[in-house]
Amino acid sequence: MTSPADAAFAHEVPLEVLVSRAFGAEAFLELGGLLPELAEDLSGIEDRLKSVLPSEYPPLTEAVLYACTTGGKRLRPLLMAAAYRALGATSTKPVHALAAAFQLIHTASLIHDDVIDHADQRRGRPSVLRAFGLPSAIVAGDYLYVRAFELASEYPQAIILRCGEACANLAEGEVLQESGRFDLTVSRDQYLSIVTRKTATIVSAALASVGDIAGSTASIVEALAAYGRAVGIAFQLRDDLLDAYGEPDLLGKPLYADFREGNPTLLSIEAYQHLEGRPKLEYERLFARREKRPRELLKLRTLTDQTPAQSLVEAEGHHWAATAIRALAPLPQGPYRSLLERLAHAATTRRY
Amino acid sequence: MTSPADAAFAHEVPLEVLVSRAFGAEAFLELGGLLPELAEDLSGIEDRLKSVLPSEYPPLTEAVLYACTTGGKRLRPLLMAAAYRALGATSTKPVHALAAAFQLIHTASLIHDDVIDHADQRRGRPSVLRAFGLPSAIVAGDYLYVRAFELASEYPQAIILRCGEACANLAEGEVLQESGRFDLTVSRDQYLSIVTRKTATIVSAALASVGDIAGSTASIVEALAAYGRAVGIAFQLRDDLLDAYGEPDLLGKPLYADFREGNPTLLSIEAYQHLEGRPKLEYERLFARREKRPRELLKLRTLTDQTPAQSLVEAEGHHWAATAIRALAPLPQGPYRSLLERLAHAATTRRY
Repeated sequence: MTSPADAAFAHEVPLEVLVSRAFGAEAFLELGGLLPELAEDLSGIEDRLKSVLPSEYPPLTEAVLYACTTGGKRLRPLLMAAAYRALGATSTKPVHALAAAFQLIHTASLIHDDVIDHADQRRGRPSVLRAFGLPSAIVAGDYLYVRAFELASEYPQAIILRCGEACANLAEGEVLQESGRFDLTVSRDQYLSIVTRKTATIVSAALASVGDIAGSTASIVEALAAYGRAVGIAFQLRDDLLDAYGEPDLLGKPLYADFREGNPTLLSIEAYQHLEGRPKLEYERLFARREKRPRELLKLRTLTDQTPAQSLVEAEGHHWAATAIRALAPLPQGPYRSLLERLAHAATTRRY
Repeated sequence: MTSPADAAFAHEVPLEVLVSRAFGAEAFLELGGLLPELAEDLSGIEDRLKSVLPSEYPPLTEAVLYACTTGGKRLRPLLMAAAYRALGATSTKPVHALAAAFQLIHTASLIHDDVIDHADQRRGRPSVLRAFGLPSAIVAGDYLYVRAFELASEYPQAIILRCGEACANLAEGEVLQESGRFDLTVSRDQYLSIVTRKTATIVSAALASVGDIAGSTASIVEALAAYGRAVGIAFQLRDDLLDAYGEPDLLGKPLYADFREGNPTLLSIEAYQHLEGRPKLEYERLFARREKRPRELLKLRTLTDQTPAQSLVEAEGHHWAATAIRALAPLPQGPYRSLLERLAHAATTRRY
């Protein structure tokens, strides 16, 4: 018998597509021989994730399956599996439950983010908010957080607590971002602090936990944490660029969400700082509008183009990718360490 | 130095007020000599709760402190402390963290409930939604769930999992309730299933965990679980009655929230089943209105009064209180078992 859960997962995305989505087709080609092993890892992680999703109440199951199976890059599970193998493991089974937990936490935070941002689209389909309504979106997020902690309960308390701290940071990042909305005077440091909380800490915690589970030394655990933090920032900087310069079809959502919602990113912060006179005032005025027309969004983009903001954000991304790669120095050399290095680089060059 | 957290907790509500709130002044008087011990227990639990609330980001701390210190009956911590003492413990310290966790879960669910129900008031003050806005309300709820699981991480995996299952049930209950809104043909059993999920399972899990922590036999753990389930249902039935027949000043919120939001309770389900002809059609029509005027709410109440619904719900409450009291039979006799029995009874007679 096929359960509704199995049916939904029948549309599972193959690894090559996931990797392409995450890092571009080029990175996928370079993965070469590692692919079968990683495909097995991701499939094991997906099994654990599946195992906790079904609720006794079918409509809730439907909403969380929808959220968990609408594409997504599986970045965190992929990095965790690669890191665990980079530490010498031949099976990634010991990290499967935790990787599933981090994936669920990420998904829960996106569902609630979309409620806060009134986002209609996510990954080429209606957001959970749009498809199931506000009550279901709130509850589905709560449910996924809870299931994530059930998965994490298999691990020692220190790992559960690190996971909790990362989630608390995520919540802080969300409130911090909310308080800075429509305000272009947010500083570069404040922006990086939001990104660290909203994206980087959770990737960092995921990778540090992999080191713990492998019984690594403190310096390896710290190296993985630093790598995760830097990759998380690089990844988010690229996200911010793609929101203004990407291809909507590849991204699965319309451009200019950050302009529209008034979320300052390094791109708009740098643009604003480099503009002068009337264009600067216009940029500020347009950015602060609660409702923006399509041509106002486009105007923000063309004003941005009159500044070096895009190049500066690209350079910042490369800086963090390089930081991530340097952080890996204490890890043993090998194909999976090379893969982690390649993935850090690809995070800043990917097109979707 | 006084931290903002301490300052907020300086308004802490004394135990006698908490107990009065939860079970009426009469119950408080009957507590007699148990009071100093329980006051110490609740204060210890409050300390643990306080210890995890502060965020590095002050506005988030403010929102969660607001949510956690606006009155509230501390029903779950009180029942957990009393149950632990009923099992022979002379210190309740081993259950403090878990009691704090259950209180946080309860608070988190109320914050998200108020978002879903657009509720402006809670415990005589603006709801978190109204006081801090939707983004903060969503994030504050997430944050409290996470902090709850951090507290629960001190305990064996079985207890964390039971806590998680109860939270998952809570989420299911919320979606189940949502799907039945504005619909009076919901059956009595469906209603009890919602109440069990939304209120009773979490009280049941809290009390069963107390038995586990005390190292009790399986029959004692099951007795406590059954007691918690029945008290939870009795408590919720009384809540439903108070929403139509209580005193708004005592309740800290306006009457008729269930009528207004179209949440069928046993009261409206019974009223609807007993009405006939035109009044039945009018009841159905008024209940289904998305926006209701004050006189329409009042009309629903007066139509309810033409049926035996109020008495039937009272009788149902007494049935569950009696079920709870009977469930305690395997526990050793003593003042704390008597207290648990008294509290079950008081749950169905309290005025606020």
